[in-house]
Amino acid sequence: MDFSDFNISIVGLGLIGGSFAKSLRKCGFKNLWAIDINQENLRKAEELNIIDKGFTNPSIPLSKSDITIICLYPELVVKFIQDNLKNFKENSIITDATGVKSNIVEVIQNLIRDDIDFIGGHPMAGKESKGFDISSAKIFENADYILTPTMRNKPENIKLLKEIIKEMKFEKIVETSVKDHDEMIAYVSQLPHIIATSIMNNSMADKENICSGGSFKDITRVSNVNSDLWVELLIENKDNVVKQIKDFITQLEVIENLIDLKDYHKLKEIFDKGRENKERI
Amino acid sequence: MDFSDFNISIVGLGLIGGSFAKSLRKCGFKNLWAIDINQENLRKAEELNIIDKGFTNPSIPLSKSDITIICLYPELVVKFIQDNLKNFKENSIITDATGVKSNIVEVIQNLIRDDIDFIGGHPMAGKESKGFDISSAKIFENADYILTPTMRNKPENIKLLKEIIKEMKFEKIVETSVKDHDEMIAYVSQLPHIIATSIMNNSMADKENICSGGSFKDITRVSNVNSDLWVELLIENKDNVVKQIKDFITQLEVIENLIDLKDYHKLKEIFDKGRENKERI
Repeated sequence: MDFSDFNISIVGLGLIGGSFAKSLRKCGFKNLWAIDINQENLRKAEELNIIDKGFTNPSIPLSKSDITIICLYPELVVKFIQDNLKNFKENSIITDATGVKSNIVEVIQNLIRDDIDFIGGHPMAGKESKGFDISSAKIFENADYILTPTMRNKPENIKLLKEIIKEMKFEKIVETSVKDHDEMIAYVSQLPHIIATSIMNNSMADKENICSGGSFKDITRVSNVNSDLWVELLIENKDNVVKQIKDFITQLEVIENLIDLKDYHKLKEIFDKGRENKERI
Repeated sequence: MDFSDFNISIVGLGLIGGSFAKSLRKCGFKNLWAIDINQENLRKAEELNIIDKGFTNPSIPLSKSDITIICLYPELVVKFIQDNLKNFKENSIITDATGVKSNIVEVIQNLIRDDIDFIGGHPMAGKESKGFDISSAKIFENADYILTPTMRNKPENIKLLKEIIKEMKFEKIVETSVKDHDEMIAYVSQLPHIIATSIMNNSMADKENICSGGSFKDITRVSNVNSDLWVELLIENKDNVVKQIKDFITQLEVIENLIDLKDYHKLKEIFDKGRENKERI
């Protein structure tokens, strides 16, 4: 698709915003701008030629942007839109990259101007650490992207966003409701982070000379997490996360009980079912 | 070190036994033999020239082997040694590759001939699937190896085993007691496998269109497990595994409770501590 008619602004040039800039640069937009309070990162992005220009004042780029991608922490997304309500270009599209949607999509759709189309988005990609310097177009390649459109969104705008997402080499684009998104994310993303952190807080982790194999390395990888962001996301999605932890504990207790009973056959059934599910997903 | 004086036998040519054969082939032993009931695998190993000869009858190779490496399921290790008590070469070394040691080392040391030195061993390497066909010398490279020697073992034999393990390119060799081994393994290996299986048995895993990122893929990798072997290992190490599951559930409940209370600061402390431990280990 030809994107040369569109101006695009990225708000927040951290790990995700920087990765958007690096990935979108290849798509041929008329102008690709970034907005951040960190002038150093804007300067670096200009020098790398992954944006056309960086701005600390959002009013100019927003007033000319057909699409604005907000890559801020959840609470700041709403605040940024509130503070810039008058600045957005007429009939433009806004999307975000937030990992939890319930307190974002409805709140924003209720407060924005009628002519603006806010479509919730979530690129399922990241790294254990944070910041512009480790951003990379590669983290998006073959990753999944979730959109949470509502009846308020214009079909042609959803279509345009999907074209851009495909161009960035994401593998799968899935549309879900806000409710389904937050339920799924509690399971596929937030629970794994809680597990990794729980394992690393076990008293055994304090021992000297811990040996480990691949399973331990893999399962604890994401314990090296950006805690500011993740704690905010967990609290934002409180009810779903608590439900997932409870379900998971129930499942652990089933296995614990069967081990205690030395019930070889029922344990084997559970492990075989797990392998089948893994192969299917 | 020069190994050209030694004959060595591998018992059981599955994933681990096959990987030993492929890895040991480069060490220059006088003879490298394999014992298995599966003639097809023995023939393949001969054709690949990773063993000098395969045997379905263990008496001949055992009677000439200075070192015997037993790569069978835990219960079969003891049975194999019992059945072949008279066959082992005088003053030879036997080691194993079993993931749980409590019911192996003491039992075997109590039943073998006085001249034979049984040293418990555990290469911390594997793959999600099983069998000779996926065996590889690569899985040992940079992996950890645990030895569980006792007062009964001869220091020069422990030293020889360590030389061979280094030659196979393992990164770290750790000596622990049987008790410490089984406690550590419940934490670093068995708990991660139980977690992966528990996640894949969650009702959410049955949903259509599950999207996921790297954290989910990594944390569930080992759910694709050899259930026959793993269920046996979990039951063998019952008390340690149950203790690790209980500790882990306690930790999960702490996080669950803090999320429920929206206690941002205490949650951040836990996630930061987890990251610090991860960086240290």
